[in-house]
Amino acid sequence: MEPTVPVDPGFELRVRASFGQQAVMGLLDAHLTDIRPGRVELEMPYRADLTQQDGFIHAGILATLGDSAGGYAAFTLFPPDTRVLTTEFKVNLLAPGKGDRFKAVGTVLRHGRTLTVSTFEVFALHGAESTLCVHGTQTTLCLAPRT
Amino acid sequence: MEPTVPVDPGFELRVRASFGQQAVMGLLDAHLTDIRPGRVELEMPYRADLTQQDGFIHAGILATLGDSAGGYAAFTLFPPDTRVLTTEFKVNLLAPGKGDRFKAVGTVLRHGRTLTVSTFEVFALHGAESTLCVHGTQTTLCLAPRT
Amino acid sequence: MEPTVPVDPGFELRVRASFGQQAVMGLLDAHLTDIRPGRVELEMPYRADLTQQDGFIHAGILATLGDSAGGYAAFTLFPPDTRVLTTEFKVNLLAPGKGDRFKAVGTVLRHGRTLTVSTFEVFALHGAESTLCVHGTQTTLCLAPRT
Amino acid sequence: MEPTVPVDPGFELRVRASFGQQAVMGLLDAHLTDIRPGRVELEMPYRADLTQQDGFIHAGILATLGDSAGGYAAFTLFPPDTRVLTTEFKVNLLAPGKGDRFKAVGTVLRHGRTLTVSTFEVFALHGAESTLCVHGTQTTLCLAPRT
Repeated sequence: MEPTVPVDPGFELRVRASFGQQAVMGLLDAHLTDIRPGRVELEMPYRADLTQQDGFIHAGILATLGDSAGGYAAFTLFPPDTRVLTTEFKVNLLAPGKGDRFKAVGTVLRHGRTLTVSTFEVFALHGAESTLCVHGTQTTLCLAPRT
Repeated sequence: MEPTVPVDPGFELRVRASFGQQAVMGLLDAHLTDIRPGRVELEMPYRADLTQQDGFIHAGILATLGDSAGGYAAFTLFPPDTRVLTTEFKVNLLAPGKGDRFKAVGTVLRHGRTLTVSTFEVFALHGAESTLCVHGTQTTLCLAPRT
Repeated sequence: MEPTVPVDPGFELRVRASFGQQAVMGLLDAHLTDIRPGRVELEMPYRADLTQQDGFIHAGILATLGDSAGGYAAFTLFPPDTRVLTTEFKVNLLAPGKGDRFKAVGTVLRHGRTLTVSTFEVFALHGAESTLCVHGTQTTLCLAPRT
Repeated sequence: MEPTVPVDPGFELRVRASFGQQAVMGLLDAHLTDIRPGRVELEMPYRADLTQQDGFIHAGILATLGDSAGGYAAFTLFPPDTRVLTTEFKVNLLAPGKGDRFKAVGTVLRHGRTLTVSTFEVFALHGAESTLCVHGTQTTLCLAPRT
């Protein structure tokens, strides 16, 4: 990972404000648990209404959490008054989504003016145990504000 | 796409039964709209509680719909008494998730005994208009039933 | 696929000139076999010195051919005096790379001012038979000329 | 990364033997520089005949090196008398392929009986400097020997 000094000292408030507007994070009971330059953590609880046919959290829901973590990791490094948009992501599903809670960690791998590449990992937490469920890579686009 | 003759003539019921157990599809108000050998369609309505910070459906939610469509497309070709598990998928996000409804079409590209590769597309529907929002590729694993 | 009217009527010459500068295409004996707006075809012969341990063409070499096909498909739609750069691609390997020749077809899925998304397919040709070996998705960036 | 104790104590010889049969590695002047359980390093020199139109090493060639590194990282953990086959990989291209030499590091993320997921990184080396050019994720399949 590159040294990551945010150009916007107010990055944390900016991330919290944007996250608060992601209605789907409310639906998932997800919340921000750590915000650092180039790195963001989210957590959500297990919920039976988020599962696939075997009772595990649906891979797409874990990817949703991971995509937000990676996108906000990128967003910490963006200038003020910009927006973040995911252009692509890929996930490898390493273990079933079973646990009490799920933690997603997004980390910037390379930050550029236009494009930023992040990785994200989603862990299933069960008591003190942590299992890596999802590994993702993601590209986000830095957009000027809509006028 | 390959010729796709399902080994299980009861593939449609099998897909419907498994889909009915994906609790998250209920949360998204998603339903099956077409089931053919190697091809499955799903639809879901726009809902404000599924959006990201700009008011569009979150990319992860569109990926969830696409992942289920591609996975069930594969599942139509699986033998009876097997299970389907996604091992990886990648999405390119081509247009914002804005529309009245969203349609996901999963199509098998290559079916093998162990691994099946599908593509999926998610379209935003607005009246008679249809916009391709997401293109995905996916690998699923055919698993013997749990004993 | 979108309607694809190139802004540069000289797109074919531009693609041929750039392709002629891809030294690695010479190393692979690859050549352009079709150039249309938003769609480019390349072919290369089988060569024993391009194989992996089982005697099939190495997946990375097939990906190299596909990446060039998809990138030049995008480049047909770019304005004059721009450059094309791949930012990411993903390949699913559907069949071993065995055949007499290999054909890559790149097709633009969505063309934007900054980013273009293409798909590419690589086929193994053996006499009159054609087998899909590789399916890829790719993002390219349109860059202003270096000054 | 998981604890990685190879089931085959002869894993290093097995990797070297298979690598020696990858003819394309000879074409690229690539060689093995480190082999450990779950982790393999390869290096190759810059060569003008491996470049794309801007004089950088073609992304597909860097992916070829990375795919071999990740595949052999997986292969260190496979049982004797098996084969390794890549089923999919994705690369994000983070910096142009310019340098004197290129080093690929493949690392197993999760090893399973059938499928193994690895990541790989390719670095451009220029004197004492090292720049991350490519980040990749990859799935490989463990196959029984052909009979």
